[in-house]
Amino acid sequence: MYDGPIQDLIGELSRLPGIGPKGAQRIAFHLLDADPDDVTSLAETIVRAKRLVHFCRVCFNLTEEETCRVCQDPRRERSQICVVEESQDVVAIERTREFRGLYHVLGGAISPIDNRGPADLHIRELVQRLEDGTVTEVILATNPNTEGEVTATYLSRLLAPLGLEVSRLASGLPVGGDLEYADEITLGRAFAGRRTVGA
Amino acid sequence: MYDGPIQDLIGELSRLPGIGPKGAQRIAFHLLDADPDDVTSLAETIVRAKRLVHFCRVCFNLTEEETCRVCQDPRRERSQICVVEESQDVVAIERTREFRGLYHVLGGAISPIDNRGPADLHIRELVQRLEDGTVTEVILATNPNTEGEVTATYLSRLLAPLGLEVSRLASGLPVGGDLEYADEITLGRAFAGRRTVGA
Repeated sequence: MYDGPIQDLIGELSRLPGIGPKGAQRIAFHLLDADPDDVTSLAETIVRAKRLVHFCRVCFNLTEEETCRVCQDPRRERSQICVVEESQDVVAIERTREFRGLYHVLGGAISPIDNRGPADLHIRELVQRLEDGTVTEVILATNPNTEGEVTATYLSRLLAPLGLEVSRLASGLPVGGDLEYADEITLGRAFAGRRTVGA
Repeated sequence: MYDGPIQDLIGELSRLPGIGPKGAQRIAFHLLDADPDDVTSLAETIVRAKRLVHFCRVCFNLTEEETCRVCQDPRRERSQICVVEESQDVVAIERTREFRGLYHVLGGAISPIDNRGPADLHIRELVQRLEDGTVTEVILATNPNTEGEVTATYLSRLLAPLGLEVSRLASGLPVGGDLEYADEITLGRAFAGRRTVGA
């Protein structure tokens, strides 16, 4: 139906995560109808971000500099490392303002289906960071799904001999949620992790 | 939270239709993690499509050439014009294979809220196309919402003196839908538009 460059554009856009064929078509027609300067600006922003942004040499978070903002910040607690799967997770945790330590971004989770094993993640670099004894606590904040759990289990066994405090984020009912609509695994975890409240 | 170019990228992406802040963040991190060649290709495809694609001189559909495929096609019935709001609507109608005439893309609908009146649409050009008497039927295929209905009403009054057959697409129950879940306006239209079936 479409001419060449329109079809190419829809094809490229539909490869982006969370965008289906309908969404890609909608965005394509929006761009073809938009101010040319806005479209050029979008394309340039994509290219510039890709050129300037890379992984932090220490923690593999995304950054424009050699090491990321968190690693550079002298006020961060250097005895704690929070291990996450992706850079997005760092953003989510930073937003809570609950954690003042450092991060380590694995670059994914162990997933046999996707043919991704421990060697494909930044696990060796994590162990190296723990060698000098500065870090005393590791918080495993991988996703609460199968791959994330497998990865957390693998890491907790790997780190056990180092004698560090290793913890995992609590699972339970999401705040603001409705008990009635919680899935059975989440509700089961909420029971298992129940905490005594003041008398 | 983000460094400059990441924030710029998320900002640009979240201006696209159907993409919220979360979706923009997800796409941004996907791009930052993707193969640089793929990202360059995306940016180039956007720029190329924008450069090559423009409006058909006759019907305002999108095309790479001076006039669009439909207008160029000698097999299309030149006595019928189907009036739509956007180029996407042409695609949707072509997919049905029900219509073999020509199109006219208005470039939107009359919408006082968006400060868009008849003069902002390609209505003058439509009237010009009807002048030589080739066209005998105009099908108003604007959207079945308030703006689309207002536009169809406006056009039907404007075209009445020309003595053409002017029709509007049928409203009714979507095929494969469930009567129980139809909204009351659609169900009302389905009643009003009911058709006698064979005895």
